[in-house]
Amino acid sequence: MTVKPINFNSDNVVGASPEIVAALAAANAGAVASYGEDPISARVEAALARLFERDVAVFPVATGTAANALCLAACTPPWGVVYCHREAHIAVDECGAPEFYAGGAKLQLLDGADAKLAPDPLAAALAAGGQGVVHHAQPAAVSVSQATECGAVYTPAELAALAAVAHRHGCKFHVDGARFANALVTLGCSAADATWRAGVDLLSFGATKNGALAAEAIVVFDPALAATIGFRRKRAGHLLSKMRFLSAQLEAYLADDLWLRNARHANTMAARAAAGLARLANRGVALAHPVEANELFVRLPNAVRAGLTADGFLFHGWGPPVAGAPDSVVRLVTSWCSDPADVDALIQRATHHAK
Amino acid sequence: MTVKPINFNSDNVVGASPEIVAALAAANAGAVASYGEDPISARVEAALARLFERDVAVFPVATGTAANALCLAACTPPWGVVYCHREAHIAVDECGAPEFYAGGAKLQLLDGADAKLAPDPLAAALAAGGQGVVHHAQPAAVSVSQATECGAVYTPAELAALAAVAHRHGCKFHVDGARFANALVTLGCSAADATWRAGVDLLSFGATKNGALAAEAIVVFDPALAATIGFRRKRAGHLLSKMRFLSAQLEAYLADDLWLRNARHANTMAARAAAGLARLANRGVALAHPVEANELFVRLPNAVRAGLTADGFLFHGWGPPVAGAPDSVVRLVTSWCSDPADVDALIQRATHHAK
Amino acid sequence: MTVKPINFNSDNVVGASPEIVAALAAANAGAVASYGEDPISARVEAALARLFERDVAVFPVATGTAANALCLAACTPPWGVVYCHREAHIAVDECGAPEFYAGGAKLQLLDGADAKLAPDPLAAALAAGGQGVVHHAQPAAVSVSQATECGAVYTPAELAALAAVAHRHGCKFHVDGARFANALVTLGCSAADATWRAGVDLLSFGATKNGALAAEAIVVFDPALAATIGFRRKRAGHLLSKMRFLSAQLEAYLADDLWLRNARHANTMAARAAAGLARLANRGVALAHPVEANELFVRLPNAVRAGLTADGFLFHGWGPPVAGAPDSVVRLVTSWCSDPADVDALIQRATHHAK
Amino acid sequence: MTVKPINFNSDNVVGASPEIVAALAAANAGAVASYGEDPISARVEAALARLFERDVAVFPVATGTAANALCLAACTPPWGVVYCHREAHIAVDECGAPEFYAGGAKLQLLDGADAKLAPDPLAAALAAGGQGVVHHAQPAAVSVSQATECGAVYTPAELAALAAVAHRHGCKFHVDGARFANALVTLGCSAADATWRAGVDLLSFGATKNGALAAEAIVVFDPALAATIGFRRKRAGHLLSKMRFLSAQLEAYLADDLWLRNARHANTMAARAAAGLARLANRGVALAHPVEANELFVRLPNAVRAGLTADGFLFHGWGPPVAGAPDSVVRLVTSWCSDPADVDALIQRATHHAK
Repeated sequence: MTVKPINFNSDNVVGASPEIVAALAAANAGAVASYGEDPISARVEAALARLFERDVAVFPVATGTAANALCLAACTPPWGVVYCHREAHIAVDECGAPEFYAGGAKLQLLDGADAKLAPDPLAAALAAGGQGVVHHAQPAAVSVSQATECGAVYTPAELAALAAVAHRHGCKFHVDGARFANALVTLGCSAADATWRAGVDLLSFGATKNGALAAEAIVVFDPALAATIGFRRKRAGHLLSKMRFLSAQLEAYLADDLWLRNARHANTMAARAAAGLARLANRGVALAHPVEANELFVRLPNAVRAGLTADGFLFHGWGPPVAGAPDSVVRLVTSWCSDPADVDALIQRATHHAK
Repeated sequence: MTVKPINFNSDNVVGASPEIVAALAAANAGAVASYGEDPISARVEAALARLFERDVAVFPVATGTAANALCLAACTPPWGVVYCHREAHIAVDECGAPEFYAGGAKLQLLDGADAKLAPDPLAAALAAGGQGVVHHAQPAAVSVSQATECGAVYTPAELAALAAVAHRHGCKFHVDGARFANALVTLGCSAADATWRAGVDLLSFGATKNGALAAEAIVVFDPALAATIGFRRKRAGHLLSKMRFLSAQLEAYLADDLWLRNARHANTMAARAAAGLARLANRGVALAHPVEANELFVRLPNAVRAGLTADGFLFHGWGPPVAGAPDSVVRLVTSWCSDPADVDALIQRATHHAK
Repeated sequence: MTVKPINFNSDNVVGASPEIVAALAAANAGAVASYGEDPISARVEAALARLFERDVAVFPVATGTAANALCLAACTPPWGVVYCHREAHIAVDECGAPEFYAGGAKLQLLDGADAKLAPDPLAAALAAGGQGVVHHAQPAAVSVSQATECGAVYTPAELAALAAVAHRHGCKFHVDGARFANALVTLGCSAADATWRAGVDLLSFGATKNGALAAEAIVVFDPALAATIGFRRKRAGHLLSKMRFLSAQLEAYLADDLWLRNARHANTMAARAAAGLARLANRGVALAHPVEANELFVRLPNAVRAGLTADGFLFHGWGPPVAGAPDSVVRLVTSWCSDPADVDALIQRATHHAK
Repeated sequence: MTVKPINFNSDNVVGASPEIVAALAAANAGAVASYGEDPISARVEAALARLFERDVAVFPVATGTAANALCLAACTPPWGVVYCHREAHIAVDECGAPEFYAGGAKLQLLDGADAKLAPDPLAAALAAGGQGVVHHAQPAAVSVSQATECGAVYTPAELAALAAVAHRHGCKFHVDGARFANALVTLGCSAADATWRAGVDLLSFGATKNGALAAEAIVVFDPALAATIGFRRKRAGHLLSKMRFLSAQLEAYLADDLWLRNARHANTMAARAAAGLARLANRGVALAHPVEANELFVRLPNAVRAGLTADGFLFHGWGPPVAGAPDSVVRLVTSWCSDPADVDALIQRATHHAK
């Protein structure tokens, strides 16, 4: 049917918000101090302090992997253990960046529905962690993704419960917020309530997937944790000389709630797709996880999947293919600029193929 | 005198070329594959292959420190030694990035006029390197900066002599080309003659200082050396998801010889400043190093330095201050967008203060 | 009952074989070259070559953790993955030594009865390993313990099946042989059949637990793998200057089959204990794993465990205690010098408490 | 002349003191707790506390490289700098162990007569260290060797001056005491005066070169510094399971001042050789460094060196050979068991060849 591909592969296949591109161009004028000593960088730190309703230490970087790895390295000694979900981006999709930055620390992988950690299994794992015994790597941090890799969102209460367990065992609590905006829009609470008031010690505050070109901010709520990050960032080659161009993206992202508007649109599009596909439940189409942000995980009969692919829709299979199975799970990601017409086309064609 | 500051602190205090900013905006349209699988990234690799007149492996990254550290890590085992000048950026200004990326390798610091390595001292150091003896870290790589940290430029013959020494001792030969364009303009030769034809194995091809926002390309001439860099880059958080925005900068940088035009302007401005200051030789003003690219190192009588600072000129002192000395060395860096009027104002005011 | 404690805590709580202590004293005479250039070290390498019926590269070290970590570091890049059992010593009891030595590599933990890996789950894990994809850490090695941490022994056929899977996925196959002697005595085959003929690439050949003071040998069957180990060992501080004292232990260990005699005694003592305790099956005493080497894992009713402890028997609980459970699993380890009378006392007192 | 070689290559070519070998044998009896929980290890810690007249944290290890690397890793972050002499063992002879253990820290090499650091150049280097600036690796530790690699000994006052400089710049002060006993005998002061009372924060307390088989003790005077060493040692594979055998060496070493008697003998032998060779001053034989411990650095005319080698005397050349030079420097090391007759033979034959 379609000629041009409609790309639901990820929220990083699309471009940047026009406001952010315009901000880059505007930031280009004149000579300013390099390495973050420019006025835009100062304004970003102030804007994040206002957003989070407290002093924060801010370290902009160009990628989420850098943000996560720097955060975790600040929390754990080389002989430390970071507890995270088995499907966490830090465990699966960063080619060992946390281990590299943390000098050889371990990730301990836990299970949990919808890629969420739960307090009791976490507490059990930490209790078995051998704290203080030199034979064992030492519990150091707990990291969760908000939203999760399965598109679910932690409530502040859920975060607080996990943070309490983490802190009780002497661990720091980190949030990989590559899709923090999408989660916050769903929660409808303040950024403070979704982070430090719930016990979060440091946050990878994502912007790239939600309308920036390449910009994330490490936001540190625990001042003691921030002490080493400046050195770690420089040493990792993540301190940009013309930092204004990174900070300008973040400033525009935060201005006029662009970030929340972008995320709201992406979430709305995901919900629209989910509602449309849910009508095919009696034809073998099923959501594999609740749709709480901008990702859908959908079980599709083989004919539906093949048909959509032939139509030109792009999306990724999720999990290893099972030979001979009548269906499989795919991931569809909507973005700040998803076209409702494309979503509707998806629903319409899925309905067609599922007949 | 002046009200607005005139900033000669570095070539990273200025913005980006309009062509490059425009290319970013143009790259924003539509959905494309992420992580470097986009068409712009493919075109950049092709453009660099044309430029260097051979197949090359290309890895764009956002900073020169990342480019250097990834290059060196590809060359040396954790127990390796990288030989470089005592004033090399990799030794002095990267907070140990090479050591981090290379898993604890060593830099061995050599002396040499104008921050240049010379073949004989290099050969002597390598000969004393204890190759094959387990007690000693092992010679693995030689790295030079082109142009050097003192603004000097290696000729192809000089590079070839160093490369021959490096290769004779089983070492790879790396060039930190943060200011490669400025050097090439001075040399007037082809990029191939200034690199692999002279024995260079891999190059940090700089663009940020010369008109990009944040873009460098690792260019690998020895295919065997490229095998690990993809993993290293991802693991370091330097594989951008929306890679098109990095590649678009490089594409515009190379298009229509923008990179050479930018560098030529910067060099011309440096030469103009040098010529003007040279006329003050009999009043205690002296060039500390030859001006072969876009950096000047100038010995200024204290009154001249203080006067220029009071006028609003920005520049850095070079080397530790010496109490009681009548003069000191400062560094002035011109850029792709230096205003000739600002250069002339510098000369005029220096002449005034040096009276 | 007993006054003096009878210690089944581990095979590392006992001393060294008199033959080995005597060899140390004998090795003390005269001046010899240091760092392994002495004649005893040369003889050990020759003895291991004879034992394994082929050329081998040998690197003596003082601990099993060092042997394992050096072996694995030789197999995996920093972005590699080592597949091992969830209960493997390298995963649980080495405080992250493999990750340290391998520059931040990952261990991927697999399940399997009796702490043994099985080919199919291993193949599935490797197939899902994302080989060649830069987002994922890369399959690099498979490591098994022989005997396992649950006292089980792999047959040569079982090893060969695992090695075939490992090699098919480009991985090296390592054996942690801290209790290799105990396993070999059970198998009754040649050392060659139990290692390289079954596809083993490198072996941590243990001696400490089986009668040495502090001596293990890294034995490398794949010559290409040995190239970096000398540097890695030195750099880790594991190249002893007076190496003769490490090599003398290994020489005496191998001489006159002392190592096999020691292991046979330990195994016999474990079998004797197992047979005795098996007679209490109808009173709630049960073996948790087959006893195939010198370790017993026994489920004991609480009263029996408490009674034995009160009697002065020393052993470790295995796994986290479960509140309210009527019994628990303990580990008992016999050694090269276990006294049959002590084993019989254990059986007798367990029988008494289990009445 | 001689038939059997007389080995002055190093103090690690000789065996161990009979008292220490006997202590090993004595330690062999019975079962004791492993990993340092045994009574001998506790007694060693107490003995070192008595020796140093204060509480100390003690970590026995098998090699000096391990002791040094663990000490330095405890002092420096991965982006730290350790200041040491250009000829320091940690810089030259450990294949990058400090860099490995410290996660990629740097050594900054300083000059100084007789391989000794001097306070003023150290202070200048530290002042130029860019403390707090993220572009630069950060001053973290100062390390000196006592005795030095040229056989010189620091007085307590000299150590105190260096320690004061180190501490003023926020650095820890480490002493590599591979030959601490030899230095202390020369100084004639207490161990406390030569260490913590002079500002030493942690010490690699050597025994191997002075009569042990393979035993060194990390002695930490600053309790905060000790916190991580237990984990680091285990993770490096340097926590011996049968630790009693390491501790037994140290206990015997300290008992009845064996360590001081051994060192005194070695020093006396070195002085005897120095006195004998000094009589050849008018024949071109000259001491290159003062002989203050058990090492001699002697400039020998080529004929004398060749003659001694032909006689069977073993020693190492020092520094790279210079083609065409009429003489060269060699190093001769005496030991706890050097035979005065061998020393006299050396003098006699050197006199013969120098005629």
